[in-house]
Amino acid sequence: MHLLKTWCHTLIIIAVVANITTARQPTDPLPSWNEGQPKSAIIDFVRKTTDESSPDFIPIPDRIATFDNDGTLWSEQPIYFQFLFAVDRVKQLAPDHPDWKNKQPFKAILENDLKTLAKSGEQGIAQVVLATHAGMTTEEFEQIVRDWLKTASHPQLKKPYTDLVFQPMLELLTYLRDHNYKTFIVSGGGVEFMRVFSQEIYGVPPEQVVGSSIKTKFELRDGQPVLVRLPEINFIDDKSGKPVGINQSIGHRPIFAAGNSDGDFEMLQWTTVAKGPRLGIIIHHDDPVREWSYDRHSPVGALDRGLDQAPVFGWQLVSMRTDWKLIYPPPREADDP
Amino acid sequence: MHLLKTWCHTLIIIAVVANITTARQPTDPLPSWNEGQPKSAIIDFVRKTTDESSPDFIPIPDRIATFDNDGTLWSEQPIYFQFLFAVDRVKQLAPDHPDWKNKQPFKAILENDLKTLAKSGEQGIAQVVLATHAGMTTEEFEQIVRDWLKTASHPQLKKPYTDLVFQPMLELLTYLRDHNYKTFIVSGGGVEFMRVFSQEIYGVPPEQVVGSSIKTKFELRDGQPVLVRLPEINFIDDKSGKPVGINQSIGHRPIFAAGNSDGDFEMLQWTTVAKGPRLGIIIHHDDPVREWSYDRHSPVGALDRGLDQAPVFGWQLVSMRTDWKLIYPPPREADDP
Repeated sequence: MHLLKTWCHTLIIIAVVANITTARQPTDPLPSWNEGQPKSAIIDFVRKTTDESSPDFIPIPDRIATFDNDGTLWSEQPIYFQFLFAVDRVKQLAPDHPDWKNKQPFKAILENDLKTLAKSGEQGIAQVVLATHAGMTTEEFEQIVRDWLKTASHPQLKKPYTDLVFQPMLELLTYLRDHNYKTFIVSGGGVEFMRVFSQEIYGVPPEQVVGSSIKTKFELRDGQPVLVRLPEINFIDDKSGKPVGINQSIGHRPIFAAGNSDGDFEMLQWTTVAKGPRLGIIIHHDDPVREWSYDRHSPVGALDRGLDQAPVFGWQLVSMRTDWKLIYPPPREADDP
Repeated sequence: MHLLKTWCHTLIIIAVVANITTARQPTDPLPSWNEGQPKSAIIDFVRKTTDESSPDFIPIPDRIATFDNDGTLWSEQPIYFQFLFAVDRVKQLAPDHPDWKNKQPFKAILENDLKTLAKSGEQGIAQVVLATHAGMTTEEFEQIVRDWLKTASHPQLKKPYTDLVFQPMLELLTYLRDHNYKTFIVSGGGVEFMRVFSQEIYGVPPEQVVGSSIKTKFELRDGQPVLVRLPEINFIDDKSGKPVGINQSIGHRPIFAAGNSDGDFEMLQWTTVAKGPRLGIIIHHDDPVREWSYDRHSPVGALDRGLDQAPVFGWQLVSMRTDWKLIYPPPREADDP
């Protein structure tokens, strides 16, 4: 009996050791990232914040990571994809709004006159968004976005928008979650627009999406409770609104943040200018061949202060051209029927 | 060798079987609940929504449960505890505000004249809340609440407020979480007030607390980013505001909701009047001996429509007197030094 037990213990020990060895095999958690400073900084940060023996160890509940969406997790050219959704909605709704033919900025959209549209500025954009995103229930809106994503494709790349996510960032999201980070999207985009696809394409559930919003109103329709979307801005989750949105919805200060434009500047400050280990990263769109190249003075996703201040704050500037092996996920195998 | 292996397998099988037997022992998940309709309804609901072979099975991401706080998870008499915090703050801040001696509703507070205070109504309460909850950074406010909770005690029960949580509801929160429900607090109380204690006393992390809020503003103070609390209401998470707050912060419709007053009526409607398995419960304060007895016409936590409509909507009315063995957690052993 004693021998039997010893045998069993030996077998168990072998199994445990084999298991540990497998687990310790150095697999690259970020295979689409080239070796370099940003990749090292990310891996060092995750190691030191999750190793219990490190002085920089962070308990699991405080491992909060926030990600901008447009330009950080997926592309944003020639303009934010949500605005292209609004443009398609204007064209679809036009028969019910004959006045739009002579009313800017709707007229410009219907005539594909992007130059005039661009001139309409923030106020014009707000007008288009409110006219196309309100007046239905939250469930109806979700279905409209879902249907649009299924059929719409990028005007230049001719691919579904949901294919235009950045493979290296998907790996980063997974890597952080594998180390018990809770990943949040914190974007100027509409919260209910993003929630339609956030789980499927980023693995981020609806309750971890923070964004801009319009007001909604509870009412009963034929005894059924609904929330009706009103044509009135509730909150703009951009620039100094990002720390406000983070505090309102998450209620912790993140220790990791990723952005790509000056709209993320205050989120990066809020995240990194504080005690303890912190990491901020900025995705720099400098790859005109595989994606787009833009920063200062870009009408969409301008990066100006962030470019100057990244070294001052110790933020990692990620070059899409040199730091990323891949931009978009490799083409998928044909799905099973 | 063959015999050795067989022995090891036998040992492993015995261990596995022993383990399963232990796990299957019928332990009561809600020991502080008396047998009865509410307890059965809760257990049936959790069983059918988490059993993969049930037609009512709900996938984990959709297992969203929302709980009101005041009167549902802890007591709320003689008045919401957060208002008692505000009263203590008025007294503490009074030396810096000599005008309060002659200005209602502050005068009433300083003179312990609760009758006049009650007459000041919602506007008076808002005035007191804004004067005591704004003008500091979010981090300073958190510290003020933390310090208050450590020293303050209930005027009648002479216990810390955090001891006045309902033991049966703590068991219910745990029971749901053990079955992969995500538990949220959705309360008319201030979100930043509740977040100070929600993790410690309910196991609900800050990002799963939805509540009323005041506006905040991002700014730099000596190069340090802070959020300053402004004396301006941002959102009231009560009545028809609860579904709005749920949609804004959680972005799914819950399948389980618990409340105690008509302030929870719309949350219960939003949760339960929809397809699929749903459960709404209302805590009825009918125990004048162990807690308080109040419902219709109560100035705090009035339950009127809910009492009439619970049978119509199939909401479980939980009698604190007959359905609960215990109200508050049993006294703790003296803490280790």
